[in-house]
Amino acid sequence: MPELSTLTVKDIGSFFVGGIQARLSGREVREVHFAKDAPPLRVDPNGRYPSGHIYVQFVRLERPSGLPIVFLNGGTFTGAMWETTPDGRPGWQRLFLGRGHDTYLSDAVGRGRSGFSPFPEIFRTAPLFRPIEETSRLLRIGSFDEQERLSTYLNTQFPVSQFDAFVKQSVPRFAGSDELERDAFAELLSMVGPCIVIAQSSGGYLATELAARNVGTIAAIVTVEMTAFPYLGAAELQALTGVPQLILWGDHIANSQMWQTTRSASDRYAETVNRNGGNVTNLDLPSIGHFGNTHQMMMDLNNADIAALIGEWLDRRH
Amino acid sequence: MPELSTLTVKDIGSFFVGGIQARLSGREVREVHFAKDAPPLRVDPNGRYPSGHIYVQFVRLERPSGLPIVFLNGGTFTGAMWETTPDGRPGWQRLFLGRGHDTYLSDAVGRGRSGFSPFPEIFRTAPLFRPIEETSRLLRIGSFDEQERLSTYLNTQFPVSQFDAFVKQSVPRFAGSDELERDAFAELLSMVGPCIVIAQSSGGYLATELAARNVGTIAAIVTVEMTAFPYLGAAELQALTGVPQLILWGDHIANSQMWQTTRSASDRYAETVNRNGGNVTNLDLPSIGHFGNTHQMMMDLNNADIAALIGEWLDRRH
Repeated sequence: MPELSTLTVKDIGSFFVGGIQARLSGREVREVHFAKDAPPLRVDPNGRYPSGHIYVQFVRLERPSGLPIVFLNGGTFTGAMWETTPDGRPGWQRLFLGRGHDTYLSDAVGRGRSGFSPFPEIFRTAPLFRPIEETSRLLRIGSFDEQERLSTYLNTQFPVSQFDAFVKQSVPRFAGSDELERDAFAELLSMVGPCIVIAQSSGGYLATELAARNVGTIAAIVTVEMTAFPYLGAAELQALTGVPQLILWGDHIANSQMWQTTRSASDRYAETVNRNGGNVTNLDLPSIGHFGNTHQMMMDLNNADIAALIGEWLDRRH
Repeated sequence: MPELSTLTVKDIGSFFVGGIQARLSGREVREVHFAKDAPPLRVDPNGRYPSGHIYVQFVRLERPSGLPIVFLNGGTFTGAMWETTPDGRPGWQRLFLGRGHDTYLSDAVGRGRSGFSPFPEIFRTAPLFRPIEETSRLLRIGSFDEQERLSTYLNTQFPVSQFDAFVKQSVPRFAGSDELERDAFAELLSMVGPCIVIAQSSGGYLATELAARNVGTIAAIVTVEMTAFPYLGAAELQALTGVPQLILWGDHIANSQMWQTTRSASDRYAETVNRNGGNVTNLDLPSIGHFGNTHQMMMDLNNADIAALIGEWLDRRH
């Protein structure tokens, strides 16, 4: 691992943006014991609850040399996915700080430090939990056999020995908070000003929707394996024209029907935007000699190489 | 606000420690639409889930000048409570980094980026949600009238204008994960080595229990308004003898039966430990001229004064 230079940090901290307050009434009051040596606490659920806001953790450098980067997490993860890798190597947050960018790591609505609200009264659905077998399969890390042994691709770049540490990053997810989520991120982007967005999976859909609606001042979007593509009317196409997009794809896409379908949809998306004057690039990492990458390429063993590749693409844009 | 000097940071990142893997079986498989433009995802809840682990975010300085500080959050909050205040001033994380300490901010089990597990199968209880009216009252920030106006003490140090931003920090809580939580923090302490623990509320109970069981190498514990006190047998008293403790108390304790009871219990706790050779100090901030502090004193308007007071207490210990 290359030695990383120290960072001269002006400020580090966090804030919360977006959201509403919703009300519950007519619910039962209870007494709950939280700790065995503590007196019971009376819990009255009736009242107002904040909902639909997001947590944002920031690091601001003394002398940034590029635009700030806003990181958007994928479905069942939080901003922690961009921090250290499960095997303790620097994540993309650290690597892009090292390249001179301020960083903003968000937790999407209902995940991590963004909290969640009483359901089904305020959040419309119950949390959805994903077992590690499903996580492993969906992210193309590998599959478990009956003896609970994990089989991976021989060339996998995932730090497989730390799979059990990795799955601790996974959090439940709630469906159906699209509107509030978009509003919260719109507020974040207006606070940050001109920025680059680096997203994964469903985070890339959100980033593209924001750009398509002319929200904020997004200079470029880099998405790791975008899993959904927004509606493209004339206004959306016009807005997306000004936002270069790099969509990165890992290895072994062809072995999964779901990933093949998604990969094809991304080609159609790029063609449509580019035919209207846009600049969307789908980059298959194997086509340039990076083999074995998973959906979690920000923590794969070659994550520094891919960060460098993104950095060079960003440099060519500005 | 005093100008803060820049930080020379060697590393910033996060890791997860502790926890188990638990299994669910025999549950229904469903299809769920997460985003309106995405294909449905098949959700099979059967399988293994990580549970009872904790998220830890760290900042390591190039040249620390004191012991690292591990921060433990209170009941319905996460490590975010130690970061920036709701009105954008530096939190205790930033202030103690400025004093030369590496910082480790954890999210307790079931909260924030530590995630939560299917309930009631793995986590024994459903999440408990606390409305803002209850949060405000319990933390001695103020009370809401029928017109939803917040009345506070005239001398309150809470940044009341940012109350709505503050409550976004609140997260649901699950009862009954004491054992796993203690194990996870034991693993954290063994990784960090000799350290200071700064905790709030139920976090102080956890810190004291760890010290009482000789877990880790805790040089000192500072607790903001400790709400529960561990069992003290001969072994526990012996272990606590070597760990100086400062317990800080804010203003208006006498106006709340619950806080009065807790404050008295803390006196009895200190007397018992000190009679056996320990060094526990209950410090009422009003008694030394700091008035109007709430249970959230790490974000009160005079939070830098209180951080300095803690810093001086720590300096006198070493």
